[in-house]
Amino acid sequence: MSDQTPPERYAMLTTESVVGYLRDIDAVVAILGEPRSSWTASDIADGNLNFVFHVRSENAGVIVKQALPWLRARGENWPLPLSRAYFEYEALLREEQRAPGRTPAVIHFDRDMALTVMEHLSPHIILRKGLVRGVRYPRLAEDTGRFLAQTLFRGSDLSLDASVKRADMALFAGNDALCAVTEARVFTEPYHDAELNRWTRPQLDRLVADVRADSIHKAAIQEMKAIFMTKAQSLLHGDLHSGSLMVTQDDTRVIDPEFAFYGPMGFDTGALLANYLIAYLAQPGQATKDDDRTDYAEWILSTAAATSTEFEKEFKHLWNTERTGALFPLEVLGNADAAATDRVLSDFLADVFRDTVGFAAAKMMRRVIGAAHVEDLESIPDPDRRASREKQVIALSRDLLRRRADIASMDDVLEAAREHQIGE
Amino acid sequence: MSDQTPPERYAMLTTESVVGYLRDIDAVVAILGEPRSSWTASDIADGNLNFVFHVRSENAGVIVKQALPWLRARGENWPLPLSRAYFEYEALLREEQRAPGRTPAVIHFDRDMALTVMEHLSPHIILRKGLVRGVRYPRLAEDTGRFLAQTLFRGSDLSLDASVKRADMALFAGNDALCAVTEARVFTEPYHDAELNRWTRPQLDRLVADVRADSIHKAAIQEMKAIFMTKAQSLLHGDLHSGSLMVTQDDTRVIDPEFAFYGPMGFDTGALLANYLIAYLAQPGQATKDDDRTDYAEWILSTAAATSTEFEKEFKHLWNTERTGALFPLEVLGNADAAATDRVLSDFLADVFRDTVGFAAAKMMRRVIGAAHVEDLESIPDPDRRASREKQVIALSRDLLRRRADIASMDDVLEAAREHQIGE
Repeated sequence: MSDQTPPERYAMLTTESVVGYLRDIDAVVAILGEPRSSWTASDIADGNLNFVFHVRSENAGVIVKQALPWLRARGENWPLPLSRAYFEYEALLREEQRAPGRTPAVIHFDRDMALTVMEHLSPHIILRKGLVRGVRYPRLAEDTGRFLAQTLFRGSDLSLDASVKRADMALFAGNDALCAVTEARVFTEPYHDAELNRWTRPQLDRLVADVRADSIHKAAIQEMKAIFMTKAQSLLHGDLHSGSLMVTQDDTRVIDPEFAFYGPMGFDTGALLANYLIAYLAQPGQATKDDDRTDYAEWILSTAAATSTEFEKEFKHLWNTERTGALFPLEVLGNADAAATDRVLSDFLADVFRDTVGFAAAKMMRRVIGAAHVEDLESIPDPDRRASREKQVIALSRDLLRRRADIASMDDVLEAAREHQIGE
Repeated sequence: MSDQTPPERYAMLTTESVVGYLRDIDAVVAILGEPRSSWTASDIADGNLNFVFHVRSENAGVIVKQALPWLRARGENWPLPLSRAYFEYEALLREEQRAPGRTPAVIHFDRDMALTVMEHLSPHIILRKGLVRGVRYPRLAEDTGRFLAQTLFRGSDLSLDASVKRADMALFAGNDALCAVTEARVFTEPYHDAELNRWTRPQLDRLVADVRADSIHKAAIQEMKAIFMTKAQSLLHGDLHSGSLMVTQDDTRVIDPEFAFYGPMGFDTGALLANYLIAYLAQPGQATKDDDRTDYAEWILSTAAATSTEFEKEFKHLWNTERTGALFPLEVLGNADAAATDRVLSDFLADVFRDTVGFAAAKMMRRVIGAAHVEDLESIPDPDRRASREKQVIALSRDLLRRRADIASMDDVLEAAREHQIGE
């Protein structure tokens, strides 16, 4: 599945060359306007994987995202195929179709250059930064809950024609390298002595050893990995953490679906939940004299709860109005018997929720003891203070994973989060 | 995913033309020998889908299986892509590699002609015919239990490199039309007023109406369908009923994997179990003055039990010696702690067993009230006598499906089967 040799046309762009590249693209000219000589570019790459340029004229701007044949954060010894740009583009098209308005508009895609030109979102900021600063976003829960329901329902066998879904699943199976990254970083490396792992030392040393000696926890993580690798339930975003959301007070956009593939719905819902739980437990570390962050921490939990409520509400709406796929078809299970329909839907959502809790647990743990950490915790400068927050993340992860089959509702999850924060 | 237009080279063979076709194939000449003019062919097609010819010389024989661009049993209005021959060939290669000696040897494959030349198995007969006649097969349980363990383990993420598995899953996703046949025939049509359904009338009329009104049963069937469509756990045979096994007293071969795709392990194990349970419940209908078939019926159950035991034994052996895939990897969950390893394996097998029971229930039902029936029941000429057997199959199917989460072992399944046979 590898395509490690870049096409002949591929060339890595710079802040200089990207401007020249864009000048010949009509759709870009239509946005940035004349004179083209006035366009300027800045490098605004934030993640680990790609080049990102902000190219602007006097009146407008666009974003150019280009994949490198390796991991930007690690260099040439960590090859990563350019095809991820293609899968991101294909995923953006499907997300826009299934949940209109929630992704940045795609202006231009160049497969050889592994490059997408997108709408510049302004004045949006990355949600994670907002959570660190303590900013509330009134539309966030509804927008993301609906996005999750619409993309996950409409990308599944509840909605798609089975042949279309099978062909699309086969297409996205080509996004092999990015799936392998998740399998390694989330489900494997944190649980043994892998090169890229790091954690707050020596404060967490004993806890890390304890996790690695816990065969029940590790087996449960492998069960979640099996679900990740084999449950081709819907087209996922695949990396839906709080760094993949850009927000304002009245808008929410989902970016960076380059990990897209057909997997379990609960992996997307669980990723978002994990990031809210981390942000919640991190809040005392963000406290200042003026704001102990108690109220804001509760706002985060209420946002997680409202997201889940909105997800289930919209999913139910789609279940009742758009069930056109091969699963639970109307000719076998019509909607006339409302009690029966509700029971079947409720069982389906309970299964998604079990996965959500399990994946949330896996995602929380890896942010503390694996390779890729998060600003919510990293921004706490005092190591003891940070470690005490991180210990709560580890404890909540273990608790949720152990009890995932018995946790019946989001209220139970939030209750567990509160207990662990208090429990310190 | 359709390839309904045959290639230009494609031509349907006849008992005349098949001999001419084979004369130029060295591998066939090597087996049948000279003089080629002495070769003769007979049409021995038994199933619903394809042409099958037995071509022989004085001393030897080969089997030629050719796909038609439609369903042989239904004609040109039921198109079915020729590509199924390709997927069958690819599956045969993998089965031979993973469970050596259990498939007929492939002598020649011609993709354009949608044709495979295979070893002629002699004196093998189709297992289903042996079960109707009351013949015991001493090697059957061990051979099929090992075949299931070896193909299902070695075709899964427990064994395969994740990239290899993803690419192979994408390849077999192209076997879309055959997956769609199973989705329709097994999981959808029996539960509503579909054209091809039939059942023993009027004896079963009320029971069929009862099943179709049972929203809990139908929802459970759809849950099994969801597992079939989304759990890409291993490369399956995909149609492992007692008509897909050819047996003698000292050999067992698995034929016809044209429904192969990446699905839940329990679909293969469940298909075989369903066919043993049907054969068991049908035995009183096969009784003669000399043999009431009581002992033989128990032999069938003991064979189902021994198959399951052998499957789990061999699976455990492979788990301990060949766990080279991304799931439950040794670097995270080594085999040093035997108690932990056994617990993890036991949980894994319990999950496969739950699926086995659910799929067995689905497969049993469709053989009585769906389109494709089986000789075990069809061979009982008296409709009342047949219907009384069929009622037990329906009742056992409903019982197993309802209790599938609570049935802990094969003993429980067999106990339920005995109760239903007695309960008449």
